[in-house]
Amino acid sequence: MADFLLNAWYAGARANELGEQFLARRLLDQPILFWRTANGDPVAMLDRCPHRFASLHTGRRVGDAVECLYHGLRFDAAGRCTRSPYSETPPANAVVPTFPVVEHQGMVWIWMGDAARADPALIPDHPHNVRADLRPIFGHETFSGNWQLGNDNLMELTHLFFLHTSTIGGYKPDAGPVEGEEYVVRQVGTQVHSHTGTPRVPNKAPIDMGVDPVAHPLIDRWNDIVWDMPSAMKFAMCATPAGGPRDVAPYMYQSHLITPETKCTSHYFWNVARTFELTPEGDAKYLHFFGNIFRTEDAPMIEDIQHNMGEADLWDLKPVVLPRDRGAVLVRRLVARALAAQAGAEAIAAE
Amino acid sequence: MADFLLNAWYAGARANELGEQFLARRLLDQPILFWRTANGDPVAMLDRCPHRFASLHTGRRVGDAVECLYHGLRFDAAGRCTRSPYSETPPANAVVPTFPVVEHQGMVWIWMGDAARADPALIPDHPHNVRADLRPIFGHETFSGNWQLGNDNLMELTHLFFLHTSTIGGYKPDAGPVEGEEYVVRQVGTQVHSHTGTPRVPNKAPIDMGVDPVAHPLIDRWNDIVWDMPSAMKFAMCATPAGGPRDVAPYMYQSHLITPETKCTSHYFWNVARTFELTPEGDAKYLHFFGNIFRTEDAPMIEDIQHNMGEADLWDLKPVVLPRDRGAVLVRRLVARALAAQAGAEAIAAE
Amino acid sequence: MADFLLNAWYAGARANELGEQFLARRLLDQPILFWRTANGDPVAMLDRCPHRFASLHTGRRVGDAVECLYHGLRFDAAGRCTRSPYSETPPANAVVPTFPVVEHQGMVWIWMGDAARADPALIPDHPHNVRADLRPIFGHETFSGNWQLGNDNLMELTHLFFLHTSTIGGYKPDAGPVEGEEYVVRQVGTQVHSHTGTPRVPNKAPIDMGVDPVAHPLIDRWNDIVWDMPSAMKFAMCATPAGGPRDVAPYMYQSHLITPETKCTSHYFWNVARTFELTPEGDAKYLHFFGNIFRTEDAPMIEDIQHNMGEADLWDLKPVVLPRDRGAVLVRRLVARALAAQAGAEAIAAE
Repeated sequence: MADFLLNAWYAGARANELGEQFLARRLLDQPILFWRTANGDPVAMLDRCPHRFASLHTGRRVGDAVECLYHGLRFDAAGRCTRSPYSETPPANAVVPTFPVVEHQGMVWIWMGDAARADPALIPDHPHNVRADLRPIFGHETFSGNWQLGNDNLMELTHLFFLHTSTIGGYKPDAGPVEGEEYVVRQVGTQVHSHTGTPRVPNKAPIDMGVDPVAHPLIDRWNDIVWDMPSAMKFAMCATPAGGPRDVAPYMYQSHLITPETKCTSHYFWNVARTFELTPEGDAKYLHFFGNIFRTEDAPMIEDIQHNMGEADLWDLKPVVLPRDRGAVLVRRLVARALAAQAGAEAIAAE
Repeated sequence: MADFLLNAWYAGARANELGEQFLARRLLDQPILFWRTANGDPVAMLDRCPHRFASLHTGRRVGDAVECLYHGLRFDAAGRCTRSPYSETPPANAVVPTFPVVEHQGMVWIWMGDAARADPALIPDHPHNVRADLRPIFGHETFSGNWQLGNDNLMELTHLFFLHTSTIGGYKPDAGPVEGEEYVVRQVGTQVHSHTGTPRVPNKAPIDMGVDPVAHPLIDRWNDIVWDMPSAMKFAMCATPAGGPRDVAPYMYQSHLITPETKCTSHYFWNVARTFELTPEGDAKYLHFFGNIFRTEDAPMIEDIQHNMGEADLWDLKPVVLPRDRGAVLVRRLVARALAAQAGAEAIAAE
Repeated sequence: MADFLLNAWYAGARANELGEQFLARRLLDQPILFWRTANGDPVAMLDRCPHRFASLHTGRRVGDAVECLYHGLRFDAAGRCTRSPYSETPPANAVVPTFPVVEHQGMVWIWMGDAARADPALIPDHPHNVRADLRPIFGHETFSGNWQLGNDNLMELTHLFFLHTSTIGGYKPDAGPVEGEEYVVRQVGTQVHSHTGTPRVPNKAPIDMGVDPVAHPLIDRWNDIVWDMPSAMKFAMCATPAGGPRDVAPYMYQSHLITPETKCTSHYFWNVARTFELTPEGDAKYLHFFGNIFRTEDAPMIEDIQHNMGEADLWDLKPVVLPRDRGAVLVRRLVARALAAQAGAEAIAAE
């Protein structure tokens, strides 16, 4: 069975990463070259010259073409060879594969499966990323673990109370259960919605939740996640005075977008739009704050687990399953079903 | 055929390594977590949470329990889950495997095979390690080589006269044969006893052998080794005035305890009890002296050989066999027979 | 199919590398120990003691013998064991394989196939390497790529105009075709001769081509390469006033000698004899100049390609083939045929 779902949109780059220069990045175990044409359109092509297989990103931009550094073949944004070193007609196989890309809500999305099925309407909607008033920030990390471990991490939020106690997760007086705690997981179409609510916790956090801690020493706090196949999560963090109505806007919206790099390494794009400290200094502060939590708390944990699991499938290892794993387990099952469907379709196509 | 003998006691740690903190160590290619309960009992358990496979050593001690850092499952010294994050009854498979451990003569011994067969009486007896009057010192090194290369190294002492000429082996006037030299190898039950004696060599050494070099410029020198399956060696180094009676106490007792880390890397615990320089400064001096000989002379040699042999079996490479290889060859044969017996027993059990 | 041609002479070392000390080098994926006997004859033997498989290069020279560091076995230049540690008669299998070696024109050549076929007359003739008046310099580099990528690189000189534009290749006004350009590839016996000529290019280069740039602002420039199986290339670089007669001596002769280290790493010996800056300072300058071009331009390119190709065969990847690939493709075909013949001979021998 393949390790990746091919017919899906993946976050390939932050829009602000693409400019004059080439960006080379491995996605779904393929080398991808990102660049923008003169009129600003993003381009994604295989980062490999079809002549002698040099990486194209070591070459040169010549107008809206890429020139290989080794023997000078040039390719346009559609991957067609436009010049061979001695001006002969390029052979028919002098073509670089390209991939559908769409710039959307601050991200560049790439489709690496059947291009005919690359419908931009399927890109997950994360409108907070274009809310200039909330100063969205865009981060990029990598981790040495299979992409599904990233899903597991975000869909099992109990880890906030153990792994993140010194940063963003220490808001319970004790790590155990709290009276009236809520945990609801639902499948909505192809999405998984996960709601966790913790009533009457102390109003303290390393970040501003928008509720006056003097007037309201106790708050209700909840987290709502919407997961889209295969690995895009939209996360709303909310707080309200204890017992107050819950129809408030979140104090923070987040995007968590995981893209396989190889079978056992992954990209992690994260975006945060917030309602507080809305200054350039705030941007820099929270870009460091959240990136640092991931790099020092989540990534080492995921990498340790990857090391311990090796290339085994999670279920083959017969993990203990706890009630709070429901979201992560549902996501795992939907992904497994989709991978099996893909394998079946490939088997039929191969007949 | 397996690479390790499972039903055997292995040195897992020096007793003085276990205290408040966790000690994580790979043994027989399994991750082991060592710790001590409040009353001082050593514990060895698999260093892996059965929930999501995080390494437990990254977690916290909570009384006599280990709490996983990721989602907070707690396990007692018997590996039973005593708390799940939301206080639900832990599932039946929420168990961490534990291993029999015995603290004995300054070492913590672990049994990783069938626990029912873990008889402490089988632990090799190295009483010099509790001779406080001889100030035993306890060292730990690792080397990138199969554990049997450690056996080979110690059971073929000719290498003293070539590899260790500038440290502890240069005691012959010439590296060749000496008149009256003795070499006796015997199997005694499941042990191998090896005796090498070199008469009338100059009384000089980098360490005190207890014979006055002015009164006795020539000495008889001999080394007696007792090997216990699979890789524990007790080594007595002796000297007497040339021609004198041999019923003297050794000037140095050593333990050499090899424990596989992986197929191609090993732990090497070594302990030395001596009759000279019996001061804390002497302890520090000889801890460095012997550790350094291993790190700069033995380990590079073993690692070079491992590199050259790759994963091949020694006999498949058709080595030249010399008369002085008798001890090492006998040990190799006993180990091979035990590994074959283990494989046979596993095959029968699997039927 | 094997990765290397066995019945061939390979450059194993520069003659000036062999002296008192051992030189250990991996060639054709075998560890080779080079040394010279007291009378100066080069020796090449397997760098592995047949007793316990220690690398012999960690041992000692004892007259015209090599003594293993571990247990002291000694071997003469023919690989015969001349001493065992206890003076017993060495066992019949106490032999180290040796290889035919010939010192020729500043290089030490080794034959690692059937010794009976090691005819010194087959060593390629590169007489410029003994032209003391041209101060030949001898360089050695390594690269992480299959040896055939080294052939490809040198037999496809279009790369001068793209990869080497800032060093030795920027002599065309534009990287494209030039009127009257010549490209002739011929097979001559088992050799491949490649001629590339570029008329009327500006007389400028980072090195002296022997044509006065004031009197002759335009020159004709050509490069002639002779390739010998499997990977020895002799390269003459020539220049003459534009339209002048071509019967001039080259301003530079080069040897490019590639020897496989492993399947995916290679040695690259290069020698340059020149007609200018004939001083010790010039030697040092050009030893750096050419070594640096290889290390910073060619080697990274070859290593990138090796990474992209993995262990795939070039033709299986269906490369685009351009007219200027003719020399490289002809060489690839001759090598493939020779490898296939070798595999066939081995299959017959194995019957």
